[in-house]
Amino acid sequence: MFMQFQTDDIIKTALNEDINYIDVTTDLLVDENAVSTAKYVSKDEGVLCGIDIAMRVFTLIDPETKFEILIHDGERVKKGDIIARITGKTRVLLKGERTALNLVQHMSGIATATNKLVQLTEGTKASIADTRKTLPGLRAIQKYAVTVGGGRNHRYNLSDCVMLKDTHLDAYGSITNAVKALREKLGHTVKIEVEVGTLEELKEALETGVEIIMLDNMSCELMAEAVRIADGRAKLEASGNVSEQTVRAIAQTGVDIISVGAITHSVKAFDISMKIEK
Amino acid sequence: MFMQFQTDDIIKTALNEDINYIDVTTDLLVDENAVSTAKYVSKDEGVLCGIDIAMRVFTLIDPETKFEILIHDGERVKKGDIIARITGKTRVLLKGERTALNLVQHMSGIATATNKLVQLTEGTKASIADTRKTLPGLRAIQKYAVTVGGGRNHRYNLSDCVMLKDTHLDAYGSITNAVKALREKLGHTVKIEVEVGTLEELKEALETGVEIIMLDNMSCELMAEAVRIADGRAKLEASGNVSEQTVRAIAQTGVDIISVGAITHSVKAFDISMKIEK
Amino acid sequence: MFMQFQTDDIIKTALNEDINYIDVTTDLLVDENAVSTAKYVSKDEGVLCGIDIAMRVFTLIDPETKFEILIHDGERVKKGDIIARITGKTRVLLKGERTALNLVQHMSGIATATNKLVQLTEGTKASIADTRKTLPGLRAIQKYAVTVGGGRNHRYNLSDCVMLKDTHLDAYGSITNAVKALREKLGHTVKIEVEVGTLEELKEALETGVEIIMLDNMSCELMAEAVRIADGRAKLEASGNVSEQTVRAIAQTGVDIISVGAITHSVKAFDISMKIEK
Amino acid sequence: MFMQFQTDDIIKTALNEDINYIDVTTDLLVDENAVSTAKYVSKDEGVLCGIDIAMRVFTLIDPETKFEILIHDGERVKKGDIIARITGKTRVLLKGERTALNLVQHMSGIATATNKLVQLTEGTKASIADTRKTLPGLRAIQKYAVTVGGGRNHRYNLSDCVMLKDTHLDAYGSITNAVKALREKLGHTVKIEVEVGTLEELKEALETGVEIIMLDNMSCELMAEAVRIADGRAKLEASGNVSEQTVRAIAQTGVDIISVGAITHSVKAFDISMKIEK
Amino acid sequence: MFMQFQTDDIIKTALNEDINYIDVTTDLLVDENAVSTAKYVSKDEGVLCGIDIAMRVFTLIDPETKFEILIHDGERVKKGDIIARITGKTRVLLKGERTALNLVQHMSGIATATNKLVQLTEGTKASIADTRKTLPGLRAIQKYAVTVGGGRNHRYNLSDCVMLKDTHLDAYGSITNAVKALREKLGHTVKIEVEVGTLEELKEALETGVEIIMLDNMSCELMAEAVRIADGRAKLEASGNVSEQTVRAIAQTGVDIISVGAITHSVKAFDISMKIEK
Amino acid sequence: MFMQFQTDDIIKTALNEDINYIDVTTDLLVDENAVSTAKYVSKDEGVLCGIDIAMRVFTLIDPETKFEILIHDGERVKKGDIIARITGKTRVLLKGERTALNLVQHMSGIATATNKLVQLTEGTKASIADTRKTLPGLRAIQKYAVTVGGGRNHRYNLSDCVMLKDTHLDAYGSITNAVKALREKLGHTVKIEVEVGTLEELKEALETGVEIIMLDNMSCELMAEAVRIADGRAKLEASGNVSEQTVRAIAQTGVDIISVGAITHSVKAFDISMKIEK
Repeated sequence: MFMQFQTDDIIKTALNEDINYIDVTTDLLVDENAVSTAKYVSKDEGVLCGIDIAMRVFTLIDPETKFEILIHDGERVKKGDIIARITGKTRVLLKGERTALNLVQHMSGIATATNKLVQLTEGTKASIADTRKTLPGLRAIQKYAVTVGGGRNHRYNLSDCVMLKDTHLDAYGSITNAVKALREKLGHTVKIEVEVGTLEELKEALETGVEIIMLDNMSCELMAEAVRIADGRAKLEASGNVSEQTVRAIAQTGVDIISVGAITHSVKAFDISMKIEK
Repeated sequence: MFMQFQTDDIIKTALNEDINYIDVTTDLLVDENAVSTAKYVSKDEGVLCGIDIAMRVFTLIDPETKFEILIHDGERVKKGDIIARITGKTRVLLKGERTALNLVQHMSGIATATNKLVQLTEGTKASIADTRKTLPGLRAIQKYAVTVGGGRNHRYNLSDCVMLKDTHLDAYGSITNAVKALREKLGHTVKIEVEVGTLEELKEALETGVEIIMLDNMSCELMAEAVRIADGRAKLEASGNVSEQTVRAIAQTGVDIISVGAITHSVKAFDISMKIEK
Repeated sequence: MFMQFQTDDIIKTALNEDINYIDVTTDLLVDENAVSTAKYVSKDEGVLCGIDIAMRVFTLIDPETKFEILIHDGERVKKGDIIARITGKTRVLLKGERTALNLVQHMSGIATATNKLVQLTEGTKASIADTRKTLPGLRAIQKYAVTVGGGRNHRYNLSDCVMLKDTHLDAYGSITNAVKALREKLGHTVKIEVEVGTLEELKEALETGVEIIMLDNMSCELMAEAVRIADGRAKLEASGNVSEQTVRAIAQTGVDIISVGAITHSVKAFDISMKIEK
Repeated sequence: MFMQFQTDDIIKTALNEDINYIDVTTDLLVDENAVSTAKYVSKDEGVLCGIDIAMRVFTLIDPETKFEILIHDGERVKKGDIIARITGKTRVLLKGERTALNLVQHMSGIATATNKLVQLTEGTKASIADTRKTLPGLRAIQKYAVTVGGGRNHRYNLSDCVMLKDTHLDAYGSITNAVKALREKLGHTVKIEVEVGTLEELKEALETGVEIIMLDNMSCELMAEAVRIADGRAKLEASGNVSEQTVRAIAQTGVDIISVGAITHSVKAFDISMKIEK
Repeated sequence: MFMQFQTDDIIKTALNEDINYIDVTTDLLVDENAVSTAKYVSKDEGVLCGIDIAMRVFTLIDPETKFEILIHDGERVKKGDIIARITGKTRVLLKGERTALNLVQHMSGIATATNKLVQLTEGTKASIADTRKTLPGLRAIQKYAVTVGGGRNHRYNLSDCVMLKDTHLDAYGSITNAVKALREKLGHTVKIEVEVGTLEELKEALETGVEIIMLDNMSCELMAEAVRIADGRAKLEASGNVSEQTVRAIAQTGVDIISVGAITHSVKAFDISMKIEK
Repeated sequence: MFMQFQTDDIIKTALNEDINYIDVTTDLLVDENAVSTAKYVSKDEGVLCGIDIAMRVFTLIDPETKFEILIHDGERVKKGDIIARITGKTRVLLKGERTALNLVQHMSGIATATNKLVQLTEGTKASIADTRKTLPGLRAIQKYAVTVGGGRNHRYNLSDCVMLKDTHLDAYGSITNAVKALREKLGHTVKIEVEVGTLEELKEALETGVEIIMLDNMSCELMAEAVRIADGRAKLEASGNVSEQTVRAIAQTGVDIISVGAITHSVKAFDISMKIEK
């Protein structure tokens, strides 16, 4: 979905960080005209993500580099699967190796973790969504990886959607008043989400007609009750204490969305390696 | 150790990502002259890191914001500890909240994970070191967090230190020849590290007089034997299969450095929250 | 609503464009320690916008510059009104003059034009909204100026809200199918707007339950009929042929939003001048 | 006249503003391999400008996009004229559409307005020139559009040419003294322009031998008299109250240049649309 | 003459180049609260330039740093002179030292070399001017240093002034035709300079009325003859073979400007050192 | 050794500095479709450096430009040698000329000066090394030019290698203590260099086992004695008073490295010119 001009800056930043001046090993030892072919091999199992961006690392260093992607973003990979094959100057392959791997390993880690939660909630109506708990400068590629894993994106930034919390209510006394104040100025394309902690707050929020209500750290019993009360009048989003252990029970309460910070703030890299074939 | 001008760009990138245009909730609801005090509270246990950068988020948004840091980088925190207190415009506190937390949670996660490995190797001569397996654009703050957790930094980038691997040896036939070729051009401030997989390679590398030898994925028995053979003639670095379970055994082989990718590529966020006090 | 870090880049770009190297007149003629006071005077009538950004030009050139804003963003100004007074090095006042005026004149032009439309629709339920027809690099300050003039912001960018047009429908045969396809992947915080040209399309769009329907270039009669048919089931947005002459009639059809490209793509600068007082 | 590297930054800024993350409509609905052809059609009458930059939007998003320009910068267009035809991925055409139109519409608006003034002064010796009253970040493309419309560029920035106004004279007592002071330091490639409000000032300025004299807000009678007095010793520039109504009378006074802020600060977008053909 | 915002980017670039991650010596050895005072001492003789920029290095690293400038830009310094005194965190002084010295040494080298040529031409009417033979990214500070040394600036860039050379004449057959073609489009604030190699070309150029004529690599005899022929009708600029040995003889031919590439393309650093006092 | 993405930014900065808006001469006189061939000719004698970067200037302006490099980086050139031939739009050749020459002349100047010192020390074991005395923003290309001339790179930045000077010793009382303190935190890939002024300090430094010792401004006699004392236990680096006159005598003392600031801080441009052939 990304266009190259959108990810080139992040790749250049990473390459400059990793190379800085020269690759003192490669530049002093490897002949500048030497050519190699390398393969990307999975050493892990899950959902691949970021292989186009990883390959772009090499064409950005040297547009002459050629590659073939064998497994695409969103497809499942097993240990030993060959993901891509790349041919170019040996110096280019070695200089780009670490940057490319850092990207594809992080993104596949997110897609894989998201996908596990999606599978665990299969058959329920709940979607898995991300949050704004992303790493600095990486939000776009992290949120993209969530969708590749089968999740959905929560708001991209603070301009996209209202999220009403306690802290915003102080000056207005009630959800009702705050929502009313918002509607006098808010653009017509922006939804309002209200965070509630009790069923009383839920009922008040429902009365205001807001589009989304976040059930903050509620027990599954309370959430099931909330679903009954809401009865489809607003989307209900479960938030808090979501893990592989708890996610199915939460989904079974009937909520529409389960948002999870861990899929972007606590990512386990997906193991992939590059091997020079010849 | 960082100077503000070094981290301001990463903070601005994160803020632009998170705000983009306006904070549609805060800007429409919170009076622009309202002032609040917030506290940063730990909900986790470990080593704090990144609190200066987190506080800088707020002074960068509004230089008038005041804060007091109660627990500093490198100090241990327990659940419930108040880390910092910050006073400023309510709008500023709410706009910067997520960006600040994303930074301090990531960095404290690294410091804490590193520190666990450091503690597990206490009493041995082994240091815990990071790798180049970092996230795009975040290398500086990640490597800093490693040192805050008691670890040491491996090379910062490809210009800093030679790392001789199989792929580099092709054109030279042997470690001996490659090292000789390097020494004809290499700057005198740059060390050479050679990756070896067998004791024969180790012996060859030792003969060349290189400063560091990486023992790649060796068993603890083999590493102990390597330590005896090297007998202090080069620093020995263990690499591969390092975890909380294995690290002590590895350290007890007598190696000098244990390098671990997971402390930067698979970070678990450290839970901290911001609470508006008044 | 903007934070300084958000507008400083646009100001620096403008200053570099306007100064480049030195101000060959001021730097060669005006003593570097000379100090002056200048006033900003309106030579036009309307709604002021951008005065904080204009003043920031000078403190960004020299943080020692002092200013007092007498009329604030959103307030009405008449010819001859003194808007602000600024004291600093004469060189700084002269170097920043043009950049500051270019900003405040453009933004006040937008606020004033928007406000005229808002006044012309007073008493109806219609809001005036902007579009994505903005000038390159200026979207944020242009959209802000629209809100200062009493208008509302349409979607900020292509990520914010779905806008379904003919061109998107090809592959799906019908609005119904396209909306269904969207709902399988779309984030729960994003609204869907559908553009319709006939009442049949309107009815189909209403059936899908989308939040907003754009009535594209319809006559007032047709729009009035559309309002009756929709009966509050979706927000209706009028688009096309909006001018000071037509806006009231459009508003009286009962539509919810009237979106206007001209307020940002065809802006008439609002006349303001800077006078050195002493 | 521009080289691609000079306008790519402004295009990227505009695209990032308009897309930010993804195009939520196009990316979710349009197949990523779908290909279309679109035409750019004029809905207005005037002088075209910016079509190369508009087409560059698409090749910058995707270098594979092909286009053919049928009407070039500087040529006249009528309603219904097909300006260009472009073939590429449908996603690319839809993602770049708004950014491309915003550019070409703004630039053609400037060229057209400038050209009207040029035509109105035909047969006189007066040239139409722009000013520094440009929009932030857009000076280069605005000034280029002025030349495409047949106008000439006034100084590009404050380093290019001296412009002596009242405010600069304070410390020197007289035009004569100020010009003398300037000549002691000024580079030999830089012209001096002096702004005068009376015939006495004009005479003093002429005595100093400066290259250009600006007649500030003078009546046509006074300007005609100024032309007689100057008798070719300096270029005379008319400034103030220039409009389509007044420009011919001003030109007939015999001045050399008529500078107009409105052609860049109050631009009316030129209507062009993009239509998908298949 | 520069404003801080104009030179901060060059300073940050230099600091990032020189520090990159941390100052491994200072950060590990010097207490972060230690404070020192350092003095800048001249070890050379000439004209100082760049001391404000050098001091800005330290306040940019840490705004708390205090300094006093004892000798200012444009003043003469002798060996042993104390130029400035600076007090701040020892870490800050050590981290900024090299960057600050690199700047002030380069700029003072230019000012000193320029000033020698200025002194050698004293009593003649000739000015010393720079060229576009500057170092990438350093044009602004190099051209500024030329003026501090008493020289004048030639055109700042290719937009500032026409420079007609052989290569431009091909399509026009003659200087006369080329100048005529230029005048049909050129902005009225831009001068025309023509390069000539013979007296015949000189005469043709004079007839066209251009403002400046460059005498390219002419002997002093020829230049003296050119001065007689021109008789004040155009500024004459001598170019080629200018050195401390030849400059006075060139000046005595009566030319107006002597332009010299060496003062910016072959700069000898001016020796200055920083000493920690306590 | 550089990849294009590493030098494109410096080239763009230089081009923007030199062109800014348009090339007022070329754009108004040269037909936009005119094509020419130009040759790069040496007018000097020495070691060529930077020809790839110079050629990149033209392909960056216009990717269609074709060139052939006849003499490569590191090869010797004599007066009159044709270095490269380039064919493209005449406008492109003229717009890029100055920027390309400024780069290749500066870099060849460094390579040539370095190479002279390398030749003067032939037969000794001493290498010529650069320093951090480089020009702002140009470190990478300057250090590269040093290696092209046969020199070696000293540390690239402050993160790369410890350099212990008097100023760092204050808090530790002795070299011994400072080195001990460093080793408790320093990464294992970083060498320690200690600056000594006396043989006593040398002996102390040798005892600590540091890798490099800088002999600061010592006489040749003292350096020869230092070499005997060190006896290979550390690399010895001579620093101070290095010139073409003194370098051989210094090398003959037996030191390992001779570092020279002048090769990067006081560069004499190497004369190369571009001639349009047709």
